[in-house]
Amino acid sequence: MNSSNHRKERDTLGEIMVPKDAYYGSQTQRAINNFQISGRHLPRTFIKAQGIIKASAAFTNMELGRLSKTTGEAIIQAAEEVIEGKFDDQFVVDVYQAGAGTSQNMNINEVIASRASEILNGRLDSHHVHPHDHVNMTQSTNDTFHSAIHIAAAEIINQRLLPSVSHLQKELEKKSIAFMPIMKSGRTHLHDALPIRLGQEFSGYAETIKSTYQQIEETTDALYEIGLGGQAIGTKMNLPPEYIPKVIAEVCKRTNLPFREPSNMFQFIQNTNAPIRTMLALKELSIHLIKITSDLRLLASGPRTGLAEITLPSVQPGSTIMPGKVNPAILEMTHMVCCQVIGYETAIATAGMAGQLEINVMMPLIAHTLLDSLEILSNTIPTMVNKCIIGIQGNEQICNNYMQESLALVTALSPIMGFDLASQIGKEADDKNVTIKQVLQERNLDTPEIIKALNPKGMV
Amino acid sequence: MNSSNHRKERDTLGEIMVPKDAYYGSQTQRAINNFQISGRHLPRTFIKAQGIIKASAAFTNMELGRLSKTTGEAIIQAAEEVIEGKFDDQFVVDVYQAGAGTSQNMNINEVIASRASEILNGRLDSHHVHPHDHVNMTQSTNDTFHSAIHIAAAEIINQRLLPSVSHLQKELEKKSIAFMPIMKSGRTHLHDALPIRLGQEFSGYAETIKSTYQQIEETTDALYEIGLGGQAIGTKMNLPPEYIPKVIAEVCKRTNLPFREPSNMFQFIQNTNAPIRTMLALKELSIHLIKITSDLRLLASGPRTGLAEITLPSVQPGSTIMPGKVNPAILEMTHMVCCQVIGYETAIATAGMAGQLEINVMMPLIAHTLLDSLEILSNTIPTMVNKCIIGIQGNEQICNNYMQESLALVTALSPIMGFDLASQIGKEADDKNVTIKQVLQERNLDTPEIIKALNPKGMV
Amino acid sequence: MNSSNHRKERDTLGEIMVPKDAYYGSQTQRAINNFQISGRHLPRTFIKAQGIIKASAAFTNMELGRLSKTTGEAIIQAAEEVIEGKFDDQFVVDVYQAGAGTSQNMNINEVIASRASEILNGRLDSHHVHPHDHVNMTQSTNDTFHSAIHIAAAEIINQRLLPSVSHLQKELEKKSIAFMPIMKSGRTHLHDALPIRLGQEFSGYAETIKSTYQQIEETTDALYEIGLGGQAIGTKMNLPPEYIPKVIAEVCKRTNLPFREPSNMFQFIQNTNAPIRTMLALKELSIHLIKITSDLRLLASGPRTGLAEITLPSVQPGSTIMPGKVNPAILEMTHMVCCQVIGYETAIATAGMAGQLEINVMMPLIAHTLLDSLEILSNTIPTMVNKCIIGIQGNEQICNNYMQESLALVTALSPIMGFDLASQIGKEADDKNVTIKQVLQERNLDTPEIIKALNPKGMV
Amino acid sequence: MNSSNHRKERDTLGEIMVPKDAYYGSQTQRAINNFQISGRHLPRTFIKAQGIIKASAAFTNMELGRLSKTTGEAIIQAAEEVIEGKFDDQFVVDVYQAGAGTSQNMNINEVIASRASEILNGRLDSHHVHPHDHVNMTQSTNDTFHSAIHIAAAEIINQRLLPSVSHLQKELEKKSIAFMPIMKSGRTHLHDALPIRLGQEFSGYAETIKSTYQQIEETTDALYEIGLGGQAIGTKMNLPPEYIPKVIAEVCKRTNLPFREPSNMFQFIQNTNAPIRTMLALKELSIHLIKITSDLRLLASGPRTGLAEITLPSVQPGSTIMPGKVNPAILEMTHMVCCQVIGYETAIATAGMAGQLEINVMMPLIAHTLLDSLEILSNTIPTMVNKCIIGIQGNEQICNNYMQESLALVTALSPIMGFDLASQIGKEADDKNVTIKQVLQERNLDTPEIIKALNPKGMV
Repeated sequence: MNSSNHRKERDTLGEIMVPKDAYYGSQTQRAINNFQISGRHLPRTFIKAQGIIKASAAFTNMELGRLSKTTGEAIIQAAEEVIEGKFDDQFVVDVYQAGAGTSQNMNINEVIASRASEILNGRLDSHHVHPHDHVNMTQSTNDTFHSAIHIAAAEIINQRLLPSVSHLQKELEKKSIAFMPIMKSGRTHLHDALPIRLGQEFSGYAETIKSTYQQIEETTDALYEIGLGGQAIGTKMNLPPEYIPKVIAEVCKRTNLPFREPSNMFQFIQNTNAPIRTMLALKELSIHLIKITSDLRLLASGPRTGLAEITLPSVQPGSTIMPGKVNPAILEMTHMVCCQVIGYETAIATAGMAGQLEINVMMPLIAHTLLDSLEILSNTIPTMVNKCIIGIQGNEQICNNYMQESLALVTALSPIMGFDLASQIGKEADDKNVTIKQVLQERNLDTPEIIKALNPKGMV
Repeated sequence: MNSSNHRKERDTLGEIMVPKDAYYGSQTQRAINNFQISGRHLPRTFIKAQGIIKASAAFTNMELGRLSKTTGEAIIQAAEEVIEGKFDDQFVVDVYQAGAGTSQNMNINEVIASRASEILNGRLDSHHVHPHDHVNMTQSTNDTFHSAIHIAAAEIINQRLLPSVSHLQKELEKKSIAFMPIMKSGRTHLHDALPIRLGQEFSGYAETIKSTYQQIEETTDALYEIGLGGQAIGTKMNLPPEYIPKVIAEVCKRTNLPFREPSNMFQFIQNTNAPIRTMLALKELSIHLIKITSDLRLLASGPRTGLAEITLPSVQPGSTIMPGKVNPAILEMTHMVCCQVIGYETAIATAGMAGQLEINVMMPLIAHTLLDSLEILSNTIPTMVNKCIIGIQGNEQICNNYMQESLALVTALSPIMGFDLASQIGKEADDKNVTIKQVLQERNLDTPEIIKALNPKGMV
Repeated sequence: MNSSNHRKERDTLGEIMVPKDAYYGSQTQRAINNFQISGRHLPRTFIKAQGIIKASAAFTNMELGRLSKTTGEAIIQAAEEVIEGKFDDQFVVDVYQAGAGTSQNMNINEVIASRASEILNGRLDSHHVHPHDHVNMTQSTNDTFHSAIHIAAAEIINQRLLPSVSHLQKELEKKSIAFMPIMKSGRTHLHDALPIRLGQEFSGYAETIKSTYQQIEETTDALYEIGLGGQAIGTKMNLPPEYIPKVIAEVCKRTNLPFREPSNMFQFIQNTNAPIRTMLALKELSIHLIKITSDLRLLASGPRTGLAEITLPSVQPGSTIMPGKVNPAILEMTHMVCCQVIGYETAIATAGMAGQLEINVMMPLIAHTLLDSLEILSNTIPTMVNKCIIGIQGNEQICNNYMQESLALVTALSPIMGFDLASQIGKEADDKNVTIKQVLQERNLDTPEIIKALNPKGMV
Repeated sequence: MNSSNHRKERDTLGEIMVPKDAYYGSQTQRAINNFQISGRHLPRTFIKAQGIIKASAAFTNMELGRLSKTTGEAIIQAAEEVIEGKFDDQFVVDVYQAGAGTSQNMNINEVIASRASEILNGRLDSHHVHPHDHVNMTQSTNDTFHSAIHIAAAEIINQRLLPSVSHLQKELEKKSIAFMPIMKSGRTHLHDALPIRLGQEFSGYAETIKSTYQQIEETTDALYEIGLGGQAIGTKMNLPPEYIPKVIAEVCKRTNLPFREPSNMFQFIQNTNAPIRTMLALKELSIHLIKITSDLRLLASGPRTGLAEITLPSVQPGSTIMPGKVNPAILEMTHMVCCQVIGYETAIATAGMAGQLEINVMMPLIAHTLLDSLEILSNTIPTMVNKCIIGIQGNEQICNNYMQESLALVTALSPIMGFDLASQIGKEADDKNVTIKQVLQERNLDTPEIIKALNPKGMV
């Protein structure tokens, strides 16, 4: 550590060297030293949410006369620069850090204090603005870190995830309409079943996504509770009563989202209810996406050795050894992302049940896994829609052939001739490897009524 | 197989011997032979829901003139006897069976057909009423088994789970009020934190449960969609348009619950959305119960070697080797039940993503794990409330002692003297193993303002 | 509670009424009253293991002169009757009970004490033999309950699970040999791939099962550590040094399995290492079974609308609405059992990480989920083998057709003409919906070398 | 896309622009365009393993006369530069990509082909060396990607994970020895239990880690099977028999690890057995680390309001609002990493069961989650050891006080006076809030024998 490149900082544990030009300070540096784990940091969306909180708190403290106008305005300007992303390279604490996110909170406190000092007197290391006494005023890690998760998650969900889910639903509905004329054989247990329209299958997919959209939207409601002012354990110690409504109003203004005070501040601080619930909704989405993408891959299997009822758009060569192969790459990627999200839900649930008394000390992991789930889903779904769903084509001829062949057509005869006789006919067609119609002809059962009943068009 | 005790039955696969007095028939017998796995059957609540569906379908088919009055009324009477539990010993198919629950559906079809035959002509084996053509008329396994899960789950949730969760919330709230005078030290990271009231901690627990109650209630909405009439793959083949509204109205009448037709029948048949979503809500409940019961066990630890801030009621001797020991048995049991529910959620999720095309063939497992989760939670929560929560006592003296000792009281000095000096005082008290007040006295910092600020009552 | 049907018993918590003829006593009765949760009890295998421990401890204590011959022999006789299953109806504590299994241990202590008293003086309620002082002598719940899990699990694994897994492997190998002549198209990404033999696919399944067999067998080694004598917290308090080797030798004699003292007794008592590890191996088995059964269902899909490369034996009619349908019921059941086992693993892992200090208080759940997993797998695998695997038939004609059609045959041309030209030919065949050979002919590339390279027999 | 900065490349799907200086080519570029999901790439260890495979294959093909010396040597040089990390910035495909990892395999094929071309003729875009025909010769994505996972995982486990686990075990053993003189009260159910030595508790932790070390080591054995030469589906198409032993020998030489051919090549290609099994072992490790770190946090709770039996080293200030607070940051971080690993295991298991027929198309996710688990555990454990375990101090006075106070001492009297009387004494001490000894004195039961039995030293 060359002293010409470093400056000395100190805290309760003593002195520590920090890079000369770093806006962060001693506690961030200790966290860098302590946590060399993954090389990953909390994402941009989280930093932005932290910045919004710092700006809102400073604004409120100024309004309430607790913070001087000079200091307050410098903090707000610095926080806004953080919000814009100007200091992203200064957020250097590993995702895996101390349990409440103290290091993360100190990172932004230190960056803003240094930058505010620099704004006021040109020297980032002047300690003119204090990371605790000024930047963190009326706050604690426990209320702000947790609130930042809510703010960041609510923003991604509103701006990116829900629109993409809605887009997916709409494009599935369009396909449903486009594919409604295509008749095919249904399959249950992967075995021949009654006729169905390809569009009906897609209408099921669209409805599944619609229902999950609503579930995610409703779940997000819990994220709008933010516990700013709860401080370390929810007691709002020494806070004037106007603080909480004012600071939340400021966050609402800066995000254009309807955040509110928690019904019970102790619950908010104790718990990680909203992230857990949101992740459960993302797990639901993932389960459904796995089912739908698996279906699509099955329907698109082939071209010669599979079902080949639909064709997916080609996005890239599929094999390094089999020339000309095109694989369902986008759907496979989607499936993998869903496996990851399901894994993240396990991580959050495991962390969520590890809360003890006043707080849960798995916060940074909860932030990381929730926000990463939202990020990868928000990127995956548009890719899935634009590079796959939109371009799916139905192969009508193949679909129709399966329908004509299906032994399940015999079902339509059951109300006419009874289940037992219909069963015998189905079994005979299977054993002799002929169609239902052929068995009926052989048995002289091909009456007009029966032939009419066998028409797949009457069955859907 | 003694032929004097057995009768011969047949189906598409040929002949099979069935116990002479059994109301079930050939297909149930095949399932008994095929599935000797766990010895467990689907529960009473599920059988009841199946019976409601069979009665409602027969009633509707009679109304629509598809089923003769004689046969229809015999079926309804038989189904009502099933609903009342008179034939519980005839439901003998293992939980682990064929994927759509065909065996389970045939079990009730056969039992009702035999019993209806017996009603009509005194002979249970007369085949007067046909399991497929009459009892299963206008139905398939796929729409009825799935709908039975919804009906059974909705009934338990409404009649047992939600009332018990609400009771838990109310008793936690009562404790919260009762414990509000008890001041103690908060703990974050299991380390000394600011003062808090024991009642405030409990108010957090109560709020957590309240929020989860609402989540379960909202989630249940999806269970009210039942796909009767969708038949095998959702195409409602050959059904008159009045069938679906009529049969659902009859189910509503018999359950007093607001069931409705699914928005999209294909989605209902393809998917297991509502059971998945309900299980996710039960997982959320379980995570919270684990956190709360773990806290209570920690607060009740001791009596001499733990925190001992609360005392739990004694319900049974705690040890076979340590005389006089009393353990938090009810809370431990609750924790285990929650672990099991979390495991069941994994099972359902794994099953839920395994759907293929028109149906999901993991239905019996989904029924079993969802209904068993609801059963054990509905039994556990009242036990937890009545045998533990209601009897919890707060140990005020011990709580107060911790509060006076807590090094975190120094937090109150931070706004007065700045974070850095306050930190030094906190550290010195820790190093010298004395109280904050003693350090202040030694440093002549014990001004009236500071002593007043140190009063814990001002902090909560 | 009619006093003529009940007797009064007492313990540290006071008096309690117990059914007159019950061999269990006050603490079992308290557990019945406290835990009305699932109606399920720990299984026969567990009770047997508890009985073995009680008999072995009494034998050892007699040998060491701590227990009189009269009392000891009566206890041993009673324990042997428990082992034989004569008192199964006396084991009435719910699976979900106090955390260490104290109620379960008291249940057997009380049953054996009553029965031993009865043996000695004809009166089961005479308290002649004391459940703690005699039956539980030198034991605690913590060492015996945990050891009983190990003994019960090791017995099922050795006697039932491993033989069934081995049988599965052997039958898959037989199928592999039988199917080796059947050439087909491989499928990767569900898309046309190179030729493969049906028998080669099955050889992969057999090898997967073989590898998992070894893993389960190795894992079982940890179960052979049993901590008898560790007592409540591993300190072996007041035990003569001969006790542990003697009691374990007696267990080995009674089980014919190589149990041994744990390397570190504190670790054994603190932890649930072996059950966790065993469940992880069962999860591995389940993942593989899901993959294999899913493959088999896919290969057997059809008969007209799927791949239909293999035919599964019919075990029962498949549909209540589609006559003649036969579904892969056994494989679906297997898949469901595997989902349940995977869910149980989640339950055990969640419970396993909840240990605190000297013991883990999730023991009864761990016992239940591990033993139930072993039970259902041990029943499922033979069913799967006997009712499905053994009867699988390969459909050679269909397999060959796919092989001839597959576009992936072009891969064989890549080393001859280069990847780029081969790719163009593959793509052209796909676009024009013709075979590779047809494209080659059109392009006059059908040289003898190339035609020979295209022969699928050369590729496998 | 400025054409002056880009060059045109082409593949079966047509033309595509690639950055002029990029070593990667058309297929990597398509993958960049298709997969904008997480911004994360497969790690250095994976790229290195891919490089080793490419070098080994080229070497073998040269030896076998299939690849010219000039081309082969250029490929080997290029691959070695990749191994050294010189082209890390050229590996740009997102972790979430096509299912078999085709894009990843093409990325390295293209980079090596360009670099080898450059080596040979100075022009990276000269296509002198072909990515398929030369670099990928005798390989496919399916055998190489999967093998690269094995190689990378085996290297991290051997070089980093196992040494760190072993170090953890040794330091826990040292603590165990150092703390053996410190007597304390055990706690079961978090309630007073018999005396134990602090060192005995730590010996349990050490043994748990030792056992898990062995489990990880044994599990790794499966990773040594690498399927090079299996090609797309395991049929080793057109390969000379010497290829496989030669290429594996070369990998062994380059890694100094004992890789071998799989027992069954189809199993290797179908399955992801070894990564699944390895992740299960990492889950076991994580469960144990969670238990141990939770215990340590509980024992270190306080300093004034918790158990305070041990003191953890301070690594950073603990709170942004409570001055002087020091939290168990390293243990919390460890717990979070374990939650993440447990989540990754869920992801892999979910992916692992999604294999279909000849391959599993979740490979990139499996690579990412397995290697990231190994990475973060390999970084966390040394941090945990060096910044926490090594510095733990036992607080003998506090430990002794708890021991003297514990009501469980009465256990020692049970063999002397019987369980029932001992229980009464224990209960009386609890009710009156006095020690066991005081009750004995009041009852005149304090005989020398009894007082001696009460001495905790005799109990451990």
